[in-house]
Amino acid sequence: MELQKILSTVDHTLLSQTATWDEIRAICDDGVKYGCASVCIPASYVKQAADYVKGAVKVCTVIGFPNGYDTTAVKCCAAADAVKNGASEVDMVINLGWVKDGRYDLVLDEIRQIKAACDGRLLKVIVETCMLTEAEKIEMCRVVSESGADYIKTSTGFGGGGATREDVALFKAHVAPHLKIKASGGIANLQDAEDFLALGADRLGTSRIVKAVKAMEK
Amino acid sequence: MELQKILSTVDHTLLSQTATWDEIRAICDDGVKYGCASVCIPASYVKQAADYVKGAVKVCTVIGFPNGYDTTAVKCCAAADAVKNGASEVDMVINLGWVKDGRYDLVLDEIRQIKAACDGRLLKVIVETCMLTEAEKIEMCRVVSESGADYIKTSTGFGGGGATREDVALFKAHVAPHLKIKASGGIANLQDAEDFLALGADRLGTSRIVKAVKAMEK
Repeated sequence: MELQKILSTVDHTLLSQTATWDEIRAICDDGVKYGCASVCIPASYVKQAADYVKGAVKVCTVIGFPNGYDTTAVKCCAAADAVKNGASEVDMVINLGWVKDGRYDLVLDEIRQIKAACDGRLLKVIVETCMLTEAEKIEMCRVVSESGADYIKTSTGFGGGGATREDVALFKAHVAPHLKIKASGGIANLQDAEDFLALGADRLGTSRIVKAVKAMEK
Repeated sequence: MELQKILSTVDHTLLSQTATWDEIRAICDDGVKYGCASVCIPASYVKQAADYVKGAVKVCTVIGFPNGYDTTAVKCCAAADAVKNGASEVDMVINLGWVKDGRYDLVLDEIRQIKAACDGRLLKVIVETCMLTEAEKIEMCRVVSESGADYIKTSTGFGGGGATREDVALFKAHVAPHLKIKASGGIANLQDAEDFLALGADRLGTSRIVKAVKAMEK
């Protein structure tokens, strides 16, 4: 697969708790240089990054992240705040306790409210596959397909497990045709990237693809 | 040390991403039964728990948790929402990227804004010791002492390391006399509890002390 095509699917990501502005700025620089889909960064850096990149790359951030158990009101507040600060894309985490309680009605309603708060920007819904059973993953494919969100996303990267080939194939088999798929967590090299894209992923959340391409340039 | 005295310092805690209402209700029941300082639970359960315990135990929750990089506006929104839902205590996480950038002015200003949003309720400030240098820990003792917050707290339990005896002793040596100390993360048994309290901790964040007491009753 053409390298530029792969890079164009990458949300170039730095979500470390201790990331400094210099590190975030480097992510922004590389996101622009390598033609990434977006840079995915902490909410507290969105305004600074959006002012810095001036539209040269989209800014993505995370809300209700990574544990997913903020209230719906707070998640909506966070989505609106991110959009106000210049985010073009918002990656939210579902309330996993509600999934375990079978309260898919609450999960669906929450996603719909957050989508509204995003005011037309892209919404990706992180279901944290490493904490779900196969039946719960399939049910979440249905819920996210019905919700108005744009993507279903595998993982936060903080839950103890990342994207697997099996999960991306499972998503592809069960989501509605309009719903896109983002694989994230543990995507380490170009072979992983090609595999996930071939299985049906539309986006990849990782910092390591850009790193791999930079290493090849040396 | 008297067992009831120890239990009265415990924030009986369940912050698992997948915690169900049955599990949270059991935490509430035990928090009441064992005379704990509070139950510390996900924000999405605060209203339900507050309605359930009817004041028999204080409800505590977490905001900007565990990564600390929500915007100040969103953390304030989360604090106000938690108070509205019935939380008597709020445990926040500082912005660790700002610490690494030396922006203690921003950290201090954020804590002050969140304290105001708590509208008189207790505010505990989690500094995530496992990610800080000794100099940064000492500087955070100063910042939290000046901020108007009620407690400095060691750990989220999600950062890869919990409370250490060394860190609690360091806090005790460097905080202002009015600032209390909460040790959390990895407190496993009654000996740990006694040690942390003897070193100057006023609160302990853990579920294992109640478990240990229940095991002794059998």
